[in-house]
Amino acid sequence: MMSMMAVTWTNYLRKRLPLTIRSLHTSKGNELDQILMSPPLASLDLPDIWSSNSASRIIPAIHKSFDDQTTEVLDGKLISMEIRSRIAAKVREMKQCLGKVPGLAVILVGQRRDSQTYVRNKIMACEEVGIKSLVTELPTDCAEMDVQNVIMRFNKDPSIHGILVQLPLPQHLDEEKVLDALCLEKDVDGFHPVNMGNLAINGREPLFTPCTPMGCIELLIRSGVDIMGKKAVVIGRSNIVGLPTSLLLQRHHATVTVIHPFTENPEQITSKADIIVSAAGVPNLVRGNWIKPGATVIDVGTTPVEDSGCDDGYRLVGDVCHEEAIKVASAITPVPGGVGPMTVAMLLCNTLVSAKRILNFN
Amino acid sequence: MMSMMAVTWTNYLRKRLPLTIRSLHTSKGNELDQILMSPPLASLDLPDIWSSNSASRIIPAIHKSFDDQTTEVLDGKLISMEIRSRIAAKVREMKQCLGKVPGLAVILVGQRRDSQTYVRNKIMACEEVGIKSLVTELPTDCAEMDVQNVIMRFNKDPSIHGILVQLPLPQHLDEEKVLDALCLEKDVDGFHPVNMGNLAINGREPLFTPCTPMGCIELLIRSGVDIMGKKAVVIGRSNIVGLPTSLLLQRHHATVTVIHPFTENPEQITSKADIIVSAAGVPNLVRGNWIKPGATVIDVGTTPVEDSGCDDGYRLVGDVCHEEAIKVASAITPVPGGVGPMTVAMLLCNTLVSAKRILNFN
Repeated sequence: MMSMMAVTWTNYLRKRLPLTIRSLHTSKGNELDQILMSPPLASLDLPDIWSSNSASRIIPAIHKSFDDQTTEVLDGKLISMEIRSRIAAKVREMKQCLGKVPGLAVILVGQRRDSQTYVRNKIMACEEVGIKSLVTELPTDCAEMDVQNVIMRFNKDPSIHGILVQLPLPQHLDEEKVLDALCLEKDVDGFHPVNMGNLAINGREPLFTPCTPMGCIELLIRSGVDIMGKKAVVIGRSNIVGLPTSLLLQRHHATVTVIHPFTENPEQITSKADIIVSAAGVPNLVRGNWIKPGATVIDVGTTPVEDSGCDDGYRLVGDVCHEEAIKVASAITPVPGGVGPMTVAMLLCNTLVSAKRILNFN
Repeated sequence: MMSMMAVTWTNYLRKRLPLTIRSLHTSKGNELDQILMSPPLASLDLPDIWSSNSASRIIPAIHKSFDDQTTEVLDGKLISMEIRSRIAAKVREMKQCLGKVPGLAVILVGQRRDSQTYVRNKIMACEEVGIKSLVTELPTDCAEMDVQNVIMRFNKDPSIHGILVQLPLPQHLDEEKVLDALCLEKDVDGFHPVNMGNLAINGREPLFTPCTPMGCIELLIRSGVDIMGKKAVVIGRSNIVGLPTSLLLQRHHATVTVIHPFTENPEQITSKADIIVSAAGVPNLVRGNWIKPGATVIDVGTTPVEDSGCDDGYRLVGDVCHEEAIKVASAITPVPGGVGPMTVAMLLCNTLVSAKRILNFN
């Protein structure tokens, strides 16, 4: 005879309480704890004990209650300034103690206008916080070996703690080979498969988490949006944003669905989500009816569209139809000024963390 | 002025047609193509071009139409026999040509009854197809160094092409360190972070895909269940089943949601799914009302429950309430006899692939 009776969902008890969870968030050390509010991933890990209690009963409700017309615009620019000022302080401290500063090398292949803008912003941000930066520009038609040689040089350079290859690369270059050549300890973009694997695997900690996903999470945390137990939908599954964002949200105990171009009726899925992170690169993809009233919307899209009224002749446009979304969401990021500055701040953070690790400085 | 007009979902065209997709599935070579129907992952990769057409229009409908009472029981035992016979043929061929056979080393720490059963099954399966197997048993209280030493020995042994550490390990051993010690080229379980990273990242191919997830996909493909464009829900997010299964389903272009104990009202999510893969390890978790009529249900759960009527004094029970599910689903795997034998067949397959790669045999 079977001694264990047929068991249902309601017969299982999760033994953890939110208090325990919360103390875990704060009690463990973090290389970044003076800078970021995001905890180390491994500190978030909890045993998956299937529960009788509907999770809603023991997970605190989403902070923001939606009483219409109070949509908060999540100011990534402001939040990133606060983070950058903490980074600057730490860099100064490092300089005083060791006479050294973190160093970031950026490799830019080709003449893509958007890539040039991104690189320029990163360099300026480094300068501002006292991180040394070096840019190597290569022509669009350079050989793979040329890129590899530059990477090898930076891999060996002890004054460089982070190396970044600005993506996308021209078609003829093998992105996989180029990224694999990066020394793991300097992979501040976090795109190396070992870092991605360790981001995915429960119980492990990547050396670096990709900057945009980390920026999204930091923005959510600093804005008081709970992630645990919430339904999150990530729109887009790129290796640099969608995929790692979905993995990171899952490490934070969201229930994650990834939407991509093969998804049928995506709006039926997104309109159930508490948190939407859109990284499709399609202007106005996310309309008002895609959004649940009171949801939090993070717009990662930055598509350059021509605009003769702008200085550069173009402007960056998000995935979300802002005018419609702002009537429905409880919180939303602007484009520009939302995720973009957070991404840059996370890159500075990763470079600092790398320098601290390599130089054994705390 | 903005030259690109506000664009909606319906203004974008996906340029690929299902025929192209299907030819990709079959045209590229696969180390396993005489054995498995699952294609290499990188051959599945498609550019994510956001589409105007609702995906339903250009993606072939699920093969099985649900006219009640025709629920198909997916016979993993039968399918795995077919796969094993192909493996046996290939092993014979290798032996004739090279005078060598694939070799699998299994490391078993402690006395867990279920682990002992699994290991015994794996060894018997090896024997049957002509793969050499070696089992090293270590006591529950062995030191980490003891496990490491055994791994190092097998890493160097040229007659061993696959190494498997039976999980879970006793609490005092650090699973991360043990798994990291495995030589990547012999990691037939596919649990190394590099393999997991390459499973996740679009455009990459892991050396090995974890056996249970690969078994689930092979079972779906061989049973004529379309994955692309379908809603798939994975219940459970373990590193060995739930996580890699979700990544693999996504590489096959399903829209994937992962359910875990922090998910609120999971049945509301599962009851929308075309494919449910349950790997929670909770008997009878998945009730009839969790399942959409006509869905395909893959039950990975194998919880040992005492049963004095069985030879061993216990029997293995799945996550799915079979009596209820069989009235709703169009296809379902039994426990035992569903995913279990597929997992073992995939382990044999991975060991063969590894031997072919190491010995440069085609």
